[in-house]
Amino acid sequence: MESKYPTEMTGKPIRCKAAVARKAGEPLIIEEIEVLPPKAWEVRIKILCTSLCHTDVTIWKLTDGPAAYFPRIFGHEAAGIVESVGEHVDEVKAGDFVIPVFQRNCGECKDCLSPKGNGCTKFPVEFFGGMPRDGTTRFVDSDGRPIHHFFSVSSFSQYTVVDIAHVVKMSRDVPVDKACLLSCGVTTGIGAVCKIAQVEEGSTVAIFGLGAVGLAVAEGARLQGASRIIGVDINPEKFEIGKKFGVTDFINPTSCTEKSVSEVIKEMSGGGADYCFECIGLASLMQDAFSSSRPGCGKTVVVGVEMHGTPLSINTYELLRGRSILGCLFGGFKPKFDIPILAKRYLDKELHLDEFISDEVKLDEINRAFDMLHRGKNLRCIIWMDNYF
Amino acid sequence: MESKYPTEMTGKPIRCKAAVARKAGEPLIIEEIEVLPPKAWEVRIKILCTSLCHTDVTIWKLTDGPAAYFPRIFGHEAAGIVESVGEHVDEVKAGDFVIPVFQRNCGECKDCLSPKGNGCTKFPVEFFGGMPRDGTTRFVDSDGRPIHHFFSVSSFSQYTVVDIAHVVKMSRDVPVDKACLLSCGVTTGIGAVCKIAQVEEGSTVAIFGLGAVGLAVAEGARLQGASRIIGVDINPEKFEIGKKFGVTDFINPTSCTEKSVSEVIKEMSGGGADYCFECIGLASLMQDAFSSSRPGCGKTVVVGVEMHGTPLSINTYELLRGRSILGCLFGGFKPKFDIPILAKRYLDKELHLDEFISDEVKLDEINRAFDMLHRGKNLRCIIWMDNYF
Ligand SMILES: [Zn+2]
Ligand SMILES: [Zn+2]
Ligand SMILES: [Zn+2]
Ligand SMILES: [Zn+2]
Repeated sequence: MESKYPTEMTGKPIRCKAAVARKAGEPLIIEEIEVLPPKAWEVRIKILCTSLCHTDVTIWKLTDGPAAYFPRIFGHEAAGIVESVGEHVDEVKAGDFVIPVFQRNCGECKDCLSPKGNGCTKFPVEFFGGMPRDGTTRFVDSDGRPIHHFFSVSSFSQYTVVDIAHVVKMSRDVPVDKACLLSCGVTTGIGAVCKIAQVEEGSTVAIFGLGAVGLAVAEGARLQGASRIIGVDINPEKFEIGKKFGVTDFINPTSCTEKSVSEVIKEMSGGGADYCFECIGLASLMQDAFSSSRPGCGKTVVVGVEMHGTPLSINTYELLRGRSILGCLFGGFKPKFDIPILAKRYLDKELHLDEFISDEVKLDEINRAFDMLHRGKNLRCIIWMDNYF
Repeated sequence: MESKYPTEMTGKPIRCKAAVARKAGEPLIIEEIEVLPPKAWEVRIKILCTSLCHTDVTIWKLTDGPAAYFPRIFGHEAAGIVESVGEHVDEVKAGDFVIPVFQRNCGECKDCLSPKGNGCTKFPVEFFGGMPRDGTTRFVDSDGRPIHHFFSVSSFSQYTVVDIAHVVKMSRDVPVDKACLLSCGVTTGIGAVCKIAQVEEGSTVAIFGLGAVGLAVAEGARLQGASRIIGVDINPEKFEIGKKFGVTDFINPTSCTEKSVSEVIKEMSGGGADYCFECIGLASLMQDAFSSSRPGCGKTVVVGVEMHGTPLSINTYELLRGRSILGCLFGGFKPKFDIPILAKRYLDKELHLDEFISDEVKLDEINRAFDMLHRGKNLRCIIWMDNYF
């Protein structure tokens, strides 16, 4: 153990509260668990707050397949304080303010060193339910049985253990809940616009789905100087919310009876939007987005994780007409490089973050956050840890 | 009529020979036809040579659908001399050396003026079988019936009429047959690499299909400084030919019994090729190309026109891992801007063109060119006009 600021718990398991998913789609159970000490290249983090992202909900519902591990601790948007670090960890120390991120960034592999993309190929095997280096777990339930991890983060716990490749050090100037927002959805939306699509000033942008990620796309488009930002959502209230993030036009698909959404967008934009973003995770909507993009140069960025595993079917003639489809995780951003830049833009009052927080609950009330996300009404619900157990 | 160099035929129909497709998939028939004078914004061109592209063959085989017009004059790669021009044509004059191109470039519309893409939205309606402005034809058969156009070019005729938006003026320094090569396939392949994918020095490139377009992709990758150019073709002879254009490695899919082509490419490139190009026109091969691309940044460029209209099916999770799929027509090049640059690179001995010509025939032997392309042995067959009928 290397820690400049050892606490009485350093090197020992920590007993704390966590919201455990015991069965697919069933309410999480607040349990007392043990969090083992960090091994080499690992960091144990005291979570201060976490928030719920659609991907938690999508995977939590999976009843089978290679990603359906139970019991499991979900959560992958969070902010916290380093409690202790394992061997070989020099990048952060106990007491540091950090955010854990699902997107790996070892900083050493060919892909991390490349200026392109944000893949990381340090660890060849994907351990969906355990730590990235050895696949084992750091959570033990009250019966002494292991609890699986999620996305290398598992933040629905007062303490978690994360590989150093998944930790970003944050400035103390950033409020805890805003730092938390930068750890997944909001960053993903902004990256999709700035890094993947590279939207230019004066462009027309269409956004399918105005949840937190879709609104982050709008925010990114606003920052890039897009002149027209068309939001598409079945909830008409999203237009007012969207205006805060630069949305200029709104289409409610349920009101499009005579024309398809794509036809409406083509008419509004004189042939098609320059950039289309799918932020829901439905193959059919990805196709609509693609059809709405401008021939000759239109780019469609798929940001949502397809909920049912349905493949995307593309008309190759429409593709040949100069359209493209781009996918990304984490908005193409390299966490350790790009998140500090976004944090600075927030502190410089360029980037809006506060407006993404629609609700706040305590860990004990976490199932309410699931209910709210299901109803599609909220943006981000901050789940505060009462971390003095 | 405005023509500074009127000939005795100016303003009158010209009687000449053409290879007419009377029925889908049946040999062309050499007929005597009449080519009407150019209307406003049109140019009548004396074709000196033409060549056969896969797209001619694909559309010639179509027995039904909106693109199956018969009788028709195919051919869209050519070079020739302006015979006369219609009203409002100032860009070229009788006697000029030009190439007709299927890719429209009016130079005035929003898309032609944009630095992005190469769409042209001057004419809202697509007239597949006639002139782009009014949909009528300029070819009349010996019974006085109209013959349809193809791709706004129809070069399998000693004379053709083309809209000025489809004409590129060429330097007299470029040999006629090399100019002809720049009018479609070779330019498409080079543009796919330089303009669409923007391949960088040191990249790994995989090319599915080493026909003329695939070899042009290799040539483009060589010019861009790719360090590894992997050719994939079922004809093992293509490796030797490919070496002339920079191909460094070769995979024959029929020899891949234990591993898929994608797996072989992933192993060769340590995770996937940076850039993959599909140059055949098969949805299944587009999928293989996509699977062979590097997660995090891999780009797949679809260059081939899907032969059977099969849609491309994409695993959205593979897309989200930072891959993208790009389509283009004419390699994303704007003909009037980009072809003269390629011609200069040829004259400067940077760009290889001579090596693309594998065969030469006369117009009367045009069906031999079809046979050769079918057998997949040749690259480009130049069809010379005996233009003194
Ligand atoms: Zn997320
Ligand atoms: Zn890495
Ligand atoms: Zn062609
Ligand atoms: Zn135009």
